[in-house]
Amino acid sequence: MSGLFITFEGGDGSGKSTQSRLLADWLAQSREVVFTREPGGTELGAEIRSLLLHTGGHITDRAEALLYAADRSHHIATVVRPALERGAVVLQDRYFDSSVAYQGEGRELEPNDIRDLSLWGTEGLIPDVTVLIDLPPAVGRERLAARDETPDRLEAAGDDFHERVRRAYLRLAEAEPDRFLVLDGTEPIDSLQQRIRDRVSAVLEQA
Amino acid sequence: MSGLFITFEGGDGSGKSTQSRLLADWLAQSREVVFTREPGGTELGAEIRSLLLHTGGHITDRAEALLYAADRSHHIATVVRPALERGAVVLQDRYFDSSVAYQGEGRELEPNDIRDLSLWGTEGLIPDVTVLIDLPPAVGRERLAARDETPDRLEAAGDDFHERVRRAYLRLAEAEPDRFLVLDGTEPIDSLQQRIRDRVSAVLEQA
Repeated sequence: MSGLFITFEGGDGSGKSTQSRLLADWLAQSREVVFTREPGGTELGAEIRSLLLHTGGHITDRAEALLYAADRSHHIATVVRPALERGAVVLQDRYFDSSVAYQGEGRELEPNDIRDLSLWGTEGLIPDVTVLIDLPPAVGRERLAARDETPDRLEAAGDDFHERVRRAYLRLAEAEPDRFLVLDGTEPIDSLQQRIRDRVSAVLEQA
Repeated sequence: MSGLFITFEGGDGSGKSTQSRLLADWLAQSREVVFTREPGGTELGAEIRSLLLHTGGHITDRAEALLYAADRSHHIATVVRPALERGAVVLQDRYFDSSVAYQGEGRELEPNDIRDLSLWGTEGLIPDVTVLIDLPPAVGRERLAARDETPDRLEAAGDDFHERVRRAYLRLAEAEPDRFLVLDGTEPIDSLQQRIRDRVSAVLEQA
């Protein structure tokens, strides 16, 4: 595998999309860039996603986790791995760290079980770099409000839940310092982007 | 849990449905009997099943296994466990032994992984009795042909595949002799039913 797999993690409103788009623009000058997201990055994934929304909560935590893992498994096998194999840089909005942080805090499931499910489904694909944009939930909420976005179920869950997710993310980053680049989401867009490019450049040079 | 969970396993045409219906009639004289099947025993399960058929093979083995496990997880949590908790006898056409035997032989997946996925999804629910009706694939095929049934994808897979599945089932039964009741599917219907009733009676008396 000669490609590079970079994931973006963090709460809603943290600036993940802005940063990944800026990075894509920059990388696309020299590399094929594939931009994707979970859940729902494939046709099957979109169906699974609509099935999950459709059930409106009438689904058990474990069944939900297995459906997310199925979506991920298919997405990685049909979109991400082929791109990596032809040498592309894959930028992905959310990956298993999201599942571990959100489902591990919001559901009565073991974070390690969530991670194991994902790793089984993806045959152990771990990102080369994971950019975690850390932000106090209240700041993220204000940004979303300013954009006039209707909060989805998770966004509406309250600052206490999002603060727990935030701490879960930071624990994941602590456990794998080489993979994670943790950024302070209150910094200006340009300076955040510079830090990301510095890290990605370093990884590309090593490869 | 005061109920009893009995699963039926074996190839198509082995007589699972006939035997489980006869057992249900007999048990229903004294107990609440819940009759169910996998995949597709719930509304969500039916949607997952149609999603699986819909993809027509354009799905990875692991994603498929995760979808089956999601169906099972939801079905056990919403149908089987509530029935067992109110003391019913649950008769189920196929459970995780089917997944282990069929996916373990037909896909490039580890049988133990398939089993672990199911056990995680169902919080470890293991049947009290599993009736395995063993039959040479050629006999099962002739029975299906006599019924004029159109073979589905698995039925059409050929005797070699079905012989491997048969052996996989027998290995599972050997590993758990207390749970499995292995029957010779070429015996007459009545004598098979008597053996099943004897075993179930013994288990009910112990309970």
